Amino acid sequence: MFSELANISIFKGLKSAEIVQLLNSVSYHIHTYEPESVIAFSSDNSSALFILIEGHVRGEMTSYNDKDIVISEIHAPDTFAEGFLFANKNKLLVNIIAVTKAKVLTIPKDELLKLLNKHTQILNNYLNITSNRFVLVSEKLKFLMFNTVRVKLAIYILDLEKEFPDKKSFRLGKTHEELATLFAITRPALTRNLLSLKKDGFIEINNKEIKIIDREGLIQLLN
Amino acid sequence: MFSELANISIFKGLKSAEIVQLLNSVSYHIHTYEPESVIAFSSDNSSALFILIEGHVRGEMTSYNDKDIVISEIHAPDTFAEGFLFANKNKLLVNIIAVTKAKVLTIPKDELLKLLNKHTQILNNYLNITSNRFVLVSEKLKFLMFNTVRVKLAIYILDLEKEFPDKKSFRLGKTHEELATLFAITRPALTRNLLSLKKDGFIEINNKEIKIIDREGLIQLLN
Repeated sequence: MFSELANISIFKGLKSAEIVQLLNSVSYHIHTYEPESVIAFSSDNSSALFILIEGHVRGEMTSYNDKDIVISEIHAPDTFAEGFLFANKNKLLVNIIAVTKAKVLTIPKDELLKLLNKHTQILNNYLNITSNRFVLVSEKLKFLMFNTVRVKLAIYILDLEKEFPDKKSFRLGKTHEELATLFAITRPALTRNLLSLKKDGFIEINNKEIKIIDREGLIQLLN
Repeated sequence: MFSELANISIFKGLKSAEIVQLLNSVSYHIHTYEPESVIAFSSDNSSALFILIEGHVRGEMTSYNDKDIVISEIHAPDTFAEGFLFANKNKLLVNIIAVTKAKVLTIPKDELLKLLNKHTQILNNYLNITSNRFVLVSEKLKFLMFNTVRVKLAIYILDLEKEFPDKKSFRLGKTHEELATLFAITRPALTRNLLSLKKDGFIEINNKEIKIIDREGLIQLLN
């Protein structure tokens, strides 16, 4: 188990032996969850850092009409729900559900704070993790402001083009799975819309490389 | 100027004299911006902590069809754009514009890291600030997933009711301005929709206190 932890971003740069020593210096708990069981409810207060050692979990928002929206999927080894830990309003906002059998190590907030205070490397890692999460949620926010999948894709592709100013074609940068999660839609809907942009002559797709054929047309889609 | 800094959350718990001493131990810059000038572009990399000492700024996302969406408004004294600072993809994502004349102190990332390493209180404050921002963006995400303002309001009010299980009526908790920003709509649209929920008999509003009259009706709105 401890050898797995060396691959996790919060312990990046540390040796397995150091991680064991660190964990022995704080109090932590390990729980195992069955598939589809709830690890934490959206109304729970965030009071510990969750480290997923084994398995696969999802975070989902439930609305009152019982439509659940999957916000994120986390595969071991990784941390989750760390973004809310130090907030004044520290409710989780998402239900955390085990997709497969899952093993979770929790470090209470106060114990984590001790680690952050003592170990510059862990502090760096933690700031990097939470900042990356913030970027992910902010990007998601940007795409949710636009209603249709076609528009979301058009913006994503136009943004991507700007990152490769010297190239005529570029890779999508994310899997269809990751893009679907970013846009809060299903994977088939993502693929269908990507192909329709191709069929309608806005883009070409060759060997996973995207080329913009009709830039003006893509921009017109946004109106 | 330094007495103002004692009121800012990153320096919470520190005396003015300590703050002066801290700032003298790092390199920082101060810039002044005219109203409607750009402090930072969305494509800029986040490389410093911004501290707004005087004035009022807004963050807005620009889309390709030149519709700008105001994401947040920050009034001095406060920090801004701190969420992206330690991310791998650390582009700001929003343009930061001075609304009034604005005075901004910047501390480069490396210098900030030194402060976080040395001062437990500043570390606590910084984790608290970034976590609060994460909660704000996550809440915004939740509301953007629902299309109409009526539905956003219905969810907000039903959530609020759960926070006051023993009360028959409760305060809105945010100003109309703050709610409009949360829902990414204009303030008049917010007020109009709130009044229409009242007119249609879903809620009563008395002296800023909300009372749910037709809970089933509110839940039906979500379908």
